[in-house]
Amino acid sequence: MIVAMQETATEEQIQQVVEHLIEMGFSVHRSTGARQTVVAAVGARVDFDIRNLEVLSGVEHVHRISAPYKLAGRSFRPAGTIVEFANGLKIGGEQVVVIAGPCSVESREQLFATAERVAKAGARALRGGAFKPRSSPYSFQGLGLEALKLLREAGDRFGLLVVSEVMEISQIAIMLPFVDIFQVGARNMQNFNLLRELGKVKKPVLLKRGIAATFEELLLSAEYIMAGGNYNVILCERGIRTFETYTRNTLDISAIPIIHKLSHLPMASDPSHGTGIRDKVAPMARASVAAGADVLLIEVHHDPDKALSDGAQSLYPDQFSELMDQLRIIAPAVGRTIA
Amino acid sequence: MIVAMQETATEEQIQQVVEHLIEMGFSVHRSTGARQTVVAAVGARVDFDIRNLEVLSGVEHVHRISAPYKLAGRSFRPAGTIVEFANGLKIGGEQVVVIAGPCSVESREQLFATAERVAKAGARALRGGAFKPRSSPYSFQGLGLEALKLLREAGDRFGLLVVSEVMEISQIAIMLPFVDIFQVGARNMQNFNLLRELGKVKKPVLLKRGIAATFEELLLSAEYIMAGGNYNVILCERGIRTFETYTRNTLDISAIPIIHKLSHLPMASDPSHGTGIRDKVAPMARASVAAGADVLLIEVHHDPDKALSDGAQSLYPDQFSELMDQLRIIAPAVGRTIA
Amino acid sequence: MIVAMQETATEEQIQQVVEHLIEMGFSVHRSTGARQTVVAAVGARVDFDIRNLEVLSGVEHVHRISAPYKLAGRSFRPAGTIVEFANGLKIGGEQVVVIAGPCSVESREQLFATAERVAKAGARALRGGAFKPRSSPYSFQGLGLEALKLLREAGDRFGLLVVSEVMEISQIAIMLPFVDIFQVGARNMQNFNLLRELGKVKKPVLLKRGIAATFEELLLSAEYIMAGGNYNVILCERGIRTFETYTRNTLDISAIPIIHKLSHLPMASDPSHGTGIRDKVAPMARASVAAGADVLLIEVHHDPDKALSDGAQSLYPDQFSELMDQLRIIAPAVGRTIA
Amino acid sequence: MIVAMQETATEEQIQQVVEHLIEMGFSVHRSTGARQTVVAAVGARVDFDIRNLEVLSGVEHVHRISAPYKLAGRSFRPAGTIVEFANGLKIGGEQVVVIAGPCSVESREQLFATAERVAKAGARALRGGAFKPRSSPYSFQGLGLEALKLLREAGDRFGLLVVSEVMEISQIAIMLPFVDIFQVGARNMQNFNLLRELGKVKKPVLLKRGIAATFEELLLSAEYIMAGGNYNVILCERGIRTFETYTRNTLDISAIPIIHKLSHLPMASDPSHGTGIRDKVAPMARASVAAGADVLLIEVHHDPDKALSDGAQSLYPDQFSELMDQLRIIAPAVGRTIA
Repeated sequence: MIVAMQETATEEQIQQVVEHLIEMGFSVHRSTGARQTVVAAVGARVDFDIRNLEVLSGVEHVHRISAPYKLAGRSFRPAGTIVEFANGLKIGGEQVVVIAGPCSVESREQLFATAERVAKAGARALRGGAFKPRSSPYSFQGLGLEALKLLREAGDRFGLLVVSEVMEISQIAIMLPFVDIFQVGARNMQNFNLLRELGKVKKPVLLKRGIAATFEELLLSAEYIMAGGNYNVILCERGIRTFETYTRNTLDISAIPIIHKLSHLPMASDPSHGTGIRDKVAPMARASVAAGADVLLIEVHHDPDKALSDGAQSLYPDQFSELMDQLRIIAPAVGRTIA
Repeated sequence: MIVAMQETATEEQIQQVVEHLIEMGFSVHRSTGARQTVVAAVGARVDFDIRNLEVLSGVEHVHRISAPYKLAGRSFRPAGTIVEFANGLKIGGEQVVVIAGPCSVESREQLFATAERVAKAGARALRGGAFKPRSSPYSFQGLGLEALKLLREAGDRFGLLVVSEVMEISQIAIMLPFVDIFQVGARNMQNFNLLRELGKVKKPVLLKRGIAATFEELLLSAEYIMAGGNYNVILCERGIRTFETYTRNTLDISAIPIIHKLSHLPMASDPSHGTGIRDKVAPMARASVAAGADVLLIEVHHDPDKALSDGAQSLYPDQFSELMDQLRIIAPAVGRTIA
Repeated sequence: MIVAMQETATEEQIQQVVEHLIEMGFSVHRSTGARQTVVAAVGARVDFDIRNLEVLSGVEHVHRISAPYKLAGRSFRPAGTIVEFANGLKIGGEQVVVIAGPCSVESREQLFATAERVAKAGARALRGGAFKPRSSPYSFQGLGLEALKLLREAGDRFGLLVVSEVMEISQIAIMLPFVDIFQVGARNMQNFNLLRELGKVKKPVLLKRGIAATFEELLLSAEYIMAGGNYNVILCERGIRTFETYTRNTLDISAIPIIHKLSHLPMASDPSHGTGIRDKVAPMARASVAAGADVLLIEVHHDPDKALSDGAQSLYPDQFSELMDQLRIIAPAVGRTIA
Repeated sequence: MIVAMQETATEEQIQQVVEHLIEMGFSVHRSTGARQTVVAAVGARVDFDIRNLEVLSGVEHVHRISAPYKLAGRSFRPAGTIVEFANGLKIGGEQVVVIAGPCSVESREQLFATAERVAKAGARALRGGAFKPRSSPYSFQGLGLEALKLLREAGDRFGLLVVSEVMEISQIAIMLPFVDIFQVGARNMQNFNLLRELGKVKKPVLLKRGIAATFEELLLSAEYIMAGGNYNVILCERGIRTFETYTRNTLDISAIPIIHKLSHLPMASDPSHGTGIRDKVAPMARASVAAGADVLLIEVHHDPDKALSDGAQSLYPDQFSELMDQLRIIAPAVGRTIA
């Protein structure tokens, strides 16, 4: 930590800062220049609020030097994390893994028709909502357990892993027998009680970035899960909220190379939620792979015009196949392959 | 709902839209001008996704006419909601109610010393965290049940209502005997499972706006609680995330008159979290009252330099007293009083 | 400047950073802790790009310590700047100065009717657009020179200073004989050529914050004017762009106490542009004074329903009078007066 | 335009709205449903302020139906605009055109060394600043006319078009003999006087999106140029300002497919300014081409460590060559080629 003192700071004020830092367990180094004094604090502590120094008299600015997360940081595993599954699939390796399926599981017919098509086109995992977070209490809220059973059955039938969203602690035990990856949605990225419980689970977690979450906050949320012992976390960009309202969100493609630099965790991109409009999904999916994404989440529905949720952002199966063909052209440009 | 067709839309495309709307249960009116056709759909349904129309061919734009919330909207109770408590205190009435206290309950000594001071200065309710949502898993997480007991005891001693934050469904039953108002934090504004459970509780809920939540989303979250039968919801502005990073958040004072127009629910302002810096709290508290806030939440600590959390934004008791004096000058300008 | 090295940085990399800093003219202090090395650079230079250090190998983060502006910073004039006018009016002193008038000058009748009403209610300066920046090329663009003459005449008649917006260098000479304060609009806050020319003028400049400008950028733009010798700069908050689209902009009331801390320049607030909706102007004007604003800009039109621009955000003269009465109640709470 | 009346609106209020619309020249259609009345106004006028209707009593919301721009809209030229140059180069055609070069022209040696390398690697145009917009008045401001001469000479030598930024009206005439494309920077996107003058010029204009500009505002600014008769406008995404500060800006890749849908104008992407960090430029350049960009702007410097401006975001010539090779793999996925 660096504390820059005001030009007018007195010796007494500087001493007060130095003592405060020493009390917090830091080693302190002091630099005095023509205009101002700077106090550098070096130490191992990550848990402190820099504002407690900022309010001391004579202090101009305080800068945190080291990241407040440890397990999620790149230096914890410089070579990068590869999440492996029982069927041999690896996330974070050479292959870009595509997870596809409907927004919500609506019926056996819908799920199986969609699963068959996406598996054939090259998807390796099936997504589908069983419990749905909806902004309005009057919207369809998901089929629950019935949906989980269908997902497992369809996954097994077509050789796909199963990914579904967990919204609440009590759902973890219900979902555990059916899913391969727990998804945490953007609205729950800072539901710390939920994250802590997922840290005790033995299955990977796909953690979506909140719509107004900084990279540091995303990595701190991953840290909550990892601190419990579950190191198989996959991060996911799904769009941030900006001043522009033409699209639901602005998919921040730069999150992909940035997270790859800051963290060892695999990075996914969700262009379906990130744009909310069908004809923007393919361009942004291509952009994600070109930028280095490890995983893509794509909403596909066998009949999107009749979807109970998010039909407007779901691809038709033929569009998904065409997209997969384009991605197979792009992946080699970044040294990757696609199934 | 209004569907504006493209200038080049064919008669067939227009018919498809009309049929789609009728199927959804709307009455349809069609207007054809020199340049384009507009289809107006009027009806009582609030639960639909306008994007399902936007993706139909020939459609240029779709505009939602009516708000997607009902119970939280101003027209549900044009005269405004007043939340009444057993001790006679009213929130939403002529008196501006000030809720004050420490960020976290840390000890009996801290809580009682602070409570005594804020009560004397004119606060009518005591706030204090028992369960703390912290961005980092390594930060202080709150004293839990012990804190709740202390809050109740201090509240009773000094004639203050008790407000504390609930983060998780299982905490509702634990908190119920001790608090007068359940606070839902910004990070949980869209924790829909939690909101739904709070709809079944017989105590008021203070619902904070998420840092990236629109007014519509805030009111939809209130709707989740109200749809369960609990109409005693108090909304709270506590700062939104903008491009400016000088302060933790940007306290959106305009939320106060806007929510007062859109909704009948009382509106609170939290300048402590909204700025994150002690010397900005008083100016923003004054601004909130001048803009018409019904409630203020102010963090006060009897010894902020030693606070375990958010000390940097907590007022000293003397600063709080001085602020209350300033607010007493301002309140009459908006036809209000302060205790 | 502080350069925090990566934990894995080599001695050679650290030396490279040190040499780079010395070459740039800084005094260098080095602190080595258990985990990492920190290099502090102290010196008088303000003109450098910290990213040139960030890209050196082994560097983790670079933090700027001192503000990149000098003349605009609080330490340049700790007591604060008071801008004085020939008629004795002072901006930045005890009195809160209210500038009022129509968005655009449309006719003699409109301007004089409005000026008379605002003068009577307590305004001390008259605002009115002669040259208008309009997002659409098809909108009303202002009356130009004719408007300037009317402004001067009305100002003199009713004892009001004259404020009008300059959009382009060639307009400075045209406006100089007619205005008392040059206003620079939000869209031109970083029109550096224009700012530089205004630095050579002997009349005060009211500089509006851009809708996406940080406080640092606003102060750097003031620095452009001041570097030319014109120290009479008044800053103005007029709303920033956020994710919320209910209002045109989000008026950032916290800018008032923040700028007062960072700079010695007087601070204005423009709730008319900051909200864009008539019934939000009064609450935000009251909030601005309660937060410590030195100046208010309020759009008033004698007949807003017929205004050629921004009628929807203009107050009726009676509303303005009522607002002034409210402000007279509030001002004493912050030790101020209003005419 | 659609005017949705409040549920409680009276017949008189509805009539007032209808009359107001007719007075404005619209054809009016009225739809009355169980809950509310909706008034649709259809007409050719684009120049009006919808807020003038919003403030009428009884009005709930007003929605603009048609875009406020005409010449820049897709329907004006459904097949898309191709900008052609004397040397046969086409922008907006099958070939993705790469514009490369240093941020600022610093010296003959620097410019020629860089130009030779980028031409060899496949760039078709040379960029370089002669007049520089700098946030700080103390930063390097460009070589001016000398830089323009060098750019022209280097362009001719290596077969590259010349692109440079114009900041001010008086620079247009100076630049005209030397440049092939006038660039308008993000800070000047709403410098309407400058745009209007560029509408009279016979050379193409590359117009950058402001850091807080909506797509509609960008297209309205293009409209200013086109309304003057200059239809050769190229739009450019260069990063928007969001809450995330890890990168200078957030490059909004989705702007590419969105602008392609809304407008017929070619769309460029500038990943150098859009990220501000060298190692993020290549991923975002690849993403831009994968998303369908017509043009790329890339900062390249023969010796970035010594650059006078933006060295930290400039590629080394070898990095640029490697990037071009990657882009040649990606372009066919979107049916494009690269030189």
